[in-house]
Amino acid sequence: MTLTTARDAVLVDLDDLAGLLPPGTLLTDPASTARYSHDEAEWAPYAVPLAVARPTSAEQVRTLVRWCVEHDVPVVPRGAGTGLSGGANAVSGGIVVSFEQMAAVTRIDPVERLAVVQPGVVNDDLRAAVAEHGLWYPPDPASSPWSTIGGNVATNAGGLCCVKYGVTGDYVLALEVVTGTGELVRVGRETAKGVAGYDLVSLLVGSEGTLGLVTEITVRLRPARPAEQTVVGFFDSLVAAGEAVAAVARAGTIPSALELLDRHCLTAVNDWKNLGIEADCEAILLARVDGPGAAGIAEAEAVLAAFEGAGATFAARSEDEAEADAMFAARRLAYPALERLGPVLTEDVCVPVGRVPEMLAAVQAIAERHDVLIANIAHAGDGNLHPLIITPAGDDEARVRAQHAFDDIIVEALACGGTVTGEHGVGLLKRAGLAAELPLAVVDMHRAIRRALDPHGVLNPGKVVT
Amino acid sequence: MTLTTARDAVLVDLDDLAGLLPPGTLLTDPASTARYSHDEAEWAPYAVPLAVARPTSAEQVRTLVRWCVEHDVPVVPRGAGTGLSGGANAVSGGIVVSFEQMAAVTRIDPVERLAVVQPGVVNDDLRAAVAEHGLWYPPDPASSPWSTIGGNVATNAGGLCCVKYGVTGDYVLALEVVTGTGELVRVGRETAKGVAGYDLVSLLVGSEGTLGLVTEITVRLRPARPAEQTVVGFFDSLVAAGEAVAAVARAGTIPSALELLDRHCLTAVNDWKNLGIEADCEAILLARVDGPGAAGIAEAEAVLAAFEGAGATFAARSEDEAEADAMFAARRLAYPALERLGPVLTEDVCVPVGRVPEMLAAVQAIAERHDVLIANIAHAGDGNLHPLIITPAGDDEARVRAQHAFDDIIVEALACGGTVTGEHGVGLLKRAGLAAELPLAVVDMHRAIRRALDPHGVLNPGKVVT
Repeated sequence: MTLTTARDAVLVDLDDLAGLLPPGTLLTDPASTARYSHDEAEWAPYAVPLAVARPTSAEQVRTLVRWCVEHDVPVVPRGAGTGLSGGANAVSGGIVVSFEQMAAVTRIDPVERLAVVQPGVVNDDLRAAVAEHGLWYPPDPASSPWSTIGGNVATNAGGLCCVKYGVTGDYVLALEVVTGTGELVRVGRETAKGVAGYDLVSLLVGSEGTLGLVTEITVRLRPARPAEQTVVGFFDSLVAAGEAVAAVARAGTIPSALELLDRHCLTAVNDWKNLGIEADCEAILLARVDGPGAAGIAEAEAVLAAFEGAGATFAARSEDEAEADAMFAARRLAYPALERLGPVLTEDVCVPVGRVPEMLAAVQAIAERHDVLIANIAHAGDGNLHPLIITPAGDDEARVRAQHAFDDIIVEALACGGTVTGEHGVGLLKRAGLAAELPLAVVDMHRAIRRALDPHGVLNPGKVVT
Repeated sequence: MTLTTARDAVLVDLDDLAGLLPPGTLLTDPASTARYSHDEAEWAPYAVPLAVARPTSAEQVRTLVRWCVEHDVPVVPRGAGTGLSGGANAVSGGIVVSFEQMAAVTRIDPVERLAVVQPGVVNDDLRAAVAEHGLWYPPDPASSPWSTIGGNVATNAGGLCCVKYGVTGDYVLALEVVTGTGELVRVGRETAKGVAGYDLVSLLVGSEGTLGLVTEITVRLRPARPAEQTVVGFFDSLVAAGEAVAAVARAGTIPSALELLDRHCLTAVNDWKNLGIEADCEAILLARVDGPGAAGIAEAEAVLAAFEGAGATFAARSEDEAEADAMFAARRLAYPALERLGPVLTEDVCVPVGRVPEMLAAVQAIAERHDVLIANIAHAGDGNLHPLIITPAGDDEARVRAQHAFDDIIVEALACGGTVTGEHGVGLLKRAGLAAELPLAVVDMHRAIRRALDPHGVLNPGKVVT
């Protein structure tokens, strides 16, 4: 280890930091620093970090942040590294703090309907743990088998069921946090309501590690819900599928999921996993409803009518649960399936639901204009579209064209009254988009808050706003 | 008007400000400045303001804040003045900004399920306007016939249905705000999801006018819901009623309201309005459920079973809608009915639901210890208790005893793992409570954020944190 060049060419002694932590907490070997150098947004820039810390307690995180403040060393927090905006990409001269060793579900309380977890708990593991108590943790990003609650909190992750049940932030009651000045504090509460002071929990959720490092999360839970029913619709154009999404909204029904997959996604998943889904269409919509009993059947019928009214070539309530599960499995596998075709540049725009058809048409036009392959996955019921721009590996010209398409999609989303990021976060990929979306006076509010809570500028510098 | 002494004995020329605004916007006559000098928390200190401004546009609010920044004059925003913590109480040398003239519902969008309103719109008026479109705005503070959306946002108001549907902040998508530097900005979005930058909306909601003056609000709506069913339970002790509340939580049912009223409240309402409610008990619980069809009946039965299991002397699903409405009317009238008995010092603690029985027992013990009358209203399903300490008018010794009881209830709520304010806000009455609840490091985070967003210290100074 010994002396290493941190940012601004300051020499720091990592042995000094290692000595403050239990043996094995700080990794500096090249294999480790390379492995933790970026999240799934490889497209965004990243550096090899000075070191990777894998603390096992909040106290160790505090020790680490204090040392970093003292030595002006950037700290980059990291969950499972499944982020798609580069928020966990390492920065030059910085230390990556991985929370993988802090993965305990500390408490599950069925009366207060809450759970207390460490940040490294995998989303699906929390879901499984609370299910044993007849409880449900709704936020379900497509990465739920791998991503962690800490990472979900940092990005305010969405998912499939948020069209009805909201996003991660809607379920965070309290946080334990190491602040930018190295204090270990608790914000929020365990009560159902509370307005004692500013809503620091919501401020920290989605701040991508720029305002504090979360060391414990208290989440709100719901009672287990009735079984879902699935409605599938096939459409011969993306725009027709988009019209069906708007029709569902107009019908006054709130599905518990309303996902769109286009032909490219279905083909890629079929080629990879052979799930046996017929893809003789341009797009499918996968809806789920979870109203109890007769109410659920009425919801399913309403969704079906909306699909048919918008011109579905085929639409049906699924009678076959295995078939329905295969469809949703295809949804979750679409991203890794497409990655097999080449580097993927992931979009994450969100537009008003009524403008989904217009936005999908715009994405198609952009693909043609820039001669790039764009596959579409969407949390369509939220208006949250994920155009995935796929380039052949090693094709630098295609990368340039892809970047132009990426930029144009952002412009179009803003023109539709949308936002540049619905759920993935700003990280590095959406910094320019953020500047385009927010007026300078609002960016200045961000800067002022960031300076207030991270006065030494060590928390994930360069991310979100600079 | 002419020269007037503002804070720090600086002379300001109110004619100068009046000249920047349309005629009649600025009121300085003693009747007006007295009328706007405090909200319903008369118990808290207040001053007669220099002037009252009643702007009709966001631009006028900006003009006003800029002038106040330039002249170091405090600005105190005010909705309908129904606040119970003194958040809208005027401060010495300051100007009260009343939003009563900005009361338009600007837009209702059934597809995106949102409404855009000015801050002076009365809560019930918004509810009625969106109902015409088959939509529902859930947040329903007991003050809903009078309080405004702007005031609800400033305090992050709760209400009866938030046990199932959440509080005001859960429904705010976007805000137009005049900042502490006199900028007019928009924060938030109109899309279902969005993570472009920090959650400034949630930071501003509940900040009681200390971080910005809200000039427009975009709220999320829900589809109209099925008719509610009412379940009533009578109990021969407060603690038994509290046990029933915990039993409902354990049963895994989420009622759409679960309210507690004690004998003092029922008597006061009956004496005033003669609603004909039998009050031969120590406490009643009023529950509503709104599941559709058979699911709703099952919910009602589950609540009924919980009431009976906890020892209700009488419990029933109400067959008579008029009777059920009278019960909920009594709930809404309890506060003004008690005010007729003398000045009321309103508590607003919130504890974990499982500790409601313990907290109710503690309130009774505190009433006895300090020889004061304490009536109890509670959003019991949320653990949000409103012990109301009533003193005979003009009895100064009783006021001192009431203050001791108030302080002891706060201590007890914190000992139960609760918060000093569930929904009324900190204002002036809960500043000491806030300091008791939050560690100094968290209070310092509040101060840093406040300095960042209100660098000139003109926004509602002295409120929340100082």
